[in-house]
Amino acid sequence: MGKITVTGIGPGNLQEMTERAKKAIEESEIVVGYHTYIKLIEALIKDKKIIGTAMKQEIERCQKAVEMSREKKVVVISSGDSGVYGMAGLVLEMILKMPEKERPEVEVISGVSAVNAAASILGAPLMHDFAVISLSDLLTDWNLIMKRIESAAQADFVIALYNPKSHKRIENILEVQKNLLKYRDKNTPVGIVTGASRENETKIISTLENFTNEEINMFSLVIIGNSQTYVKENFMITPRGYNLNLR
Amino acid sequence: MGKITVTGIGPGNLQEMTERAKKAIEESEIVVGYHTYIKLIEALIKDKKIIGTAMKQEIERCQKAVEMSREKKVVVISSGDSGVYGMAGLVLEMILKMPEKERPEVEVISGVSAVNAAASILGAPLMHDFAVISLSDLLTDWNLIMKRIESAAQADFVIALYNPKSHKRIENILEVQKNLLKYRDKNTPVGIVTGASRENETKIISTLENFTNEEINMFSLVIIGNSQTYVKENFMITPRGYNLNLR
Repeated sequence: MGKITVTGIGPGNLQEMTERAKKAIEESEIVVGYHTYIKLIEALIKDKKIIGTAMKQEIERCQKAVEMSREKKVVVISSGDSGVYGMAGLVLEMILKMPEKERPEVEVISGVSAVNAAASILGAPLMHDFAVISLSDLLTDWNLIMKRIESAAQADFVIALYNPKSHKRIENILEVQKNLLKYRDKNTPVGIVTGASRENETKIISTLENFTNEEINMFSLVIIGNSQTYVKENFMITPRGYNLNLR
Repeated sequence: MGKITVTGIGPGNLQEMTERAKKAIEESEIVVGYHTYIKLIEALIKDKKIIGTAMKQEIERCQKAVEMSREKKVVVISSGDSGVYGMAGLVLEMILKMPEKERPEVEVISGVSAVNAAASILGAPLMHDFAVISLSDLLTDWNLIMKRIESAAQADFVIALYNPKSHKRIENILEVQKNLLKYRDKNTPVGIVTGASRENETKIISTLENFTNEEINMFSLVIIGNSQTYVKENFMITPRGYNLNLR
């Protein structure tokens, strides 16, 4: 009987991976994941069998992984945490669909999530309640996404946006911005981190009024401050509420 | 000139800590943190100087750390990620208050956040948009917390609750439950993970109607499913939206 492990590899640098994730990869026979992420952990993979697939082939990728895990030790990797827009859900859904006696052993390992990695690069923007929203409307109705944006804005959540923009999807972020400006000051700090912890990492701190003029792509994570968030010397900080008399 | 590093140590097991966090602790001269978390990383600390403080002494703890970092290498630890209800914000606020030429070097290192660790133990409950809310009303007005709960419920976010309950604070969670029941089915899955990745880790999967009868304490993280979340064989799963025909 084989085993399937789904693991987050963290934001992209081996230094930001957990011991448990590393061990799972090293002990596996087959590594499955999106090409770009496979590259990030090449040093760990060595001569293992690799099943790399292109973006948007999640179902195919998972099916292969599940099939092979009947007999082999397979690890499926996601960047960041495997449980946040990653592969953990899909793998579990497929495994639970199998007759119980045919199922491989299954394990889910978490990792440093992209939102946390981006936050640490910006300073401390997530110190108060926050909402995590993906702007990809491939699998989610756009009206539901916009409803979530509005609700989060009204209740003064810090808002973290995954998949803010892609080549084909450039209007969504503008609609989000327009909507947020109804509820939040135009000078609200907005942080953009692209390629967090990777060689080409960039960090931009802008405002709600101007952030859409900056470079944003599918490797960017956008964090929009709440009404208390401020910027000081290139750090973006959301106060937790301690009475410090510090500002 | 000294250095101050704020780092998340992950959920509590050295296996779930990143290489970068470990290195920061090993290279420091002084380790500052809440006693319970210091204990979790004792193996790394060895004969370093330890400043352990009790819960709720965050300001005092940070002030000591900042003061000592003028000359020494100090690391301030938080469980999970230091940027989510952790010490990153407070340290940065204090450092930025100092005259620029007196400031130590400062670094923020992220870790596996408690919400991600809890999710991996439950299965994959965070696969869709989610809101993170602390129920502690020490620093936040209770009306704002309840407004956030209601907004998140209305927009069908998965909801993760930090600080759900303490000895002195046992009514808040009941009010949250009552409110959520206005918007969500009473059979909505609710996962409770206590002491994630620690020796005494427990996992309970219950429902919105019944979860407040379970053991919940200050080391618990509660995850309330959205309208699509389901439970199968003790796994809690929120589908991402792939058309799998799998259930």
